[in-house]
Amino acid sequence: MRARKKKQDFPVSEIRRFLEPGPIVLVSSAWKGERNIMTMGWHMVIEFVPSLVGCLISSGNHSYELIRRSRACVINVPTVDQAKTVVEIGNCSGASVDKFARFKLTAEPAEQVGAPLIGQCYANLECKLADDRLCDRYNMFIFEVVKAHVAAAPKYPKTIHYRGDGMFMVAGRSLNLRRYFQPQML
Amino acid sequence: MRARKKKQDFPVSEIRRFLEPGPIVLVSSAWKGERNIMTMGWHMVIEFVPSLVGCLISSGNHSYELIRRSRACVINVPTVDQAKTVVEIGNCSGASVDKFARFKLTAEPAEQVGAPLIGQCYANLECKLADDRLCDRYNMFIFEVVKAHVAAAPKYPKTIHYRGDGMFMVAGRSLNLRRYFQPQML
Repeated sequence: MRARKKKQDFPVSEIRRFLEPGPIVLVSSAWKGERNIMTMGWHMVIEFVPSLVGCLISSGNHSYELIRRSRACVINVPTVDQAKTVVEIGNCSGASVDKFARFKLTAEPAEQVGAPLIGQCYANLECKLADDRLCDRYNMFIFEVVKAHVAAAPKYPKTIHYRGDGMFMVAGRSLNLRRYFQPQML
Repeated sequence: MRARKKKQDFPVSEIRRFLEPGPIVLVSSAWKGERNIMTMGWHMVIEFVPSLVGCLISSGNHSYELIRRSRACVINVPTVDQAKTVVEIGNCSGASVDKFARFKLTAEPAEQVGAPLIGQCYANLECKLADDRLCDRYNMFIFEVVKAHVAAAPKYPKTIHYRGDGMFMVAGRSLNLRRYFQPQML
């Protein structure tokens, strides 16, 4: 991956800008001296305030127990220049590999959770587990984003979006449709 | 919107191709002679088999009661040529408007649910409510996709992805990264 990105604080109630378009993300976690990263494609915004995000993390993932026990994670948003690494992270297991070391990623300390930020990613969203009642049934975690660090530029990152079967869609052009909105709907 | 699209049956276990990249969608519903359409941006795939999708539908939407009572909906995937209509559908209420009539959309009969398909959309996913235990707390519906109708071409539609604040991202180029996957991960 490329160099670490310089970040700014970003309002947690506005992280839909990055997650709602549906990018693949990297989830970092830590528990009792162990750390890991997984690739995740199934997530959605649930609420603005508090800033809630629903995520599917299969119990077959090595990260599952780290996240359930620590009750926290960081959702990191990578960009298209990191696509190969994103796939490779998803194709090996933290049970046998320290993915930060293997992929030369920088684990930066978070402010509010024990899980590390991935320095090279465009955005880092520190998350605390807010509701695990659907973990056993659906592997669904509901996280509260408690702190967001976002690269100063560009405003809209070139994220990648998984379609299954090894195929991704790269974020394309921006379309400003503000003129069609009622002011109170913006 | 443009003309109705000719559709083919599509395996419900593979609808991630269209929903996982995170497009804005149109949700159609019907109950006791009333019908409606709403624009929805917060959804995620939950499982392949059964084909489950989680959706956030605020109780402030006119569609909320139609969907809860009928226990069904259709998730319709629009494309960039329909962007203006998608916004306008989200900016008026079904309490005072028949959106099919106002926006000249064709309500086609579904096979397994009472809600109508929107003929002009690229894909139509017939959904039955599978779990409403998080409706009261989070406005979260878990649907099972029971039937999928998808346009014969193109393979990857030019969907639109909401960023908030009136700004959308248009689906960009495809990126084939199959060569980096372990075969069993595809």
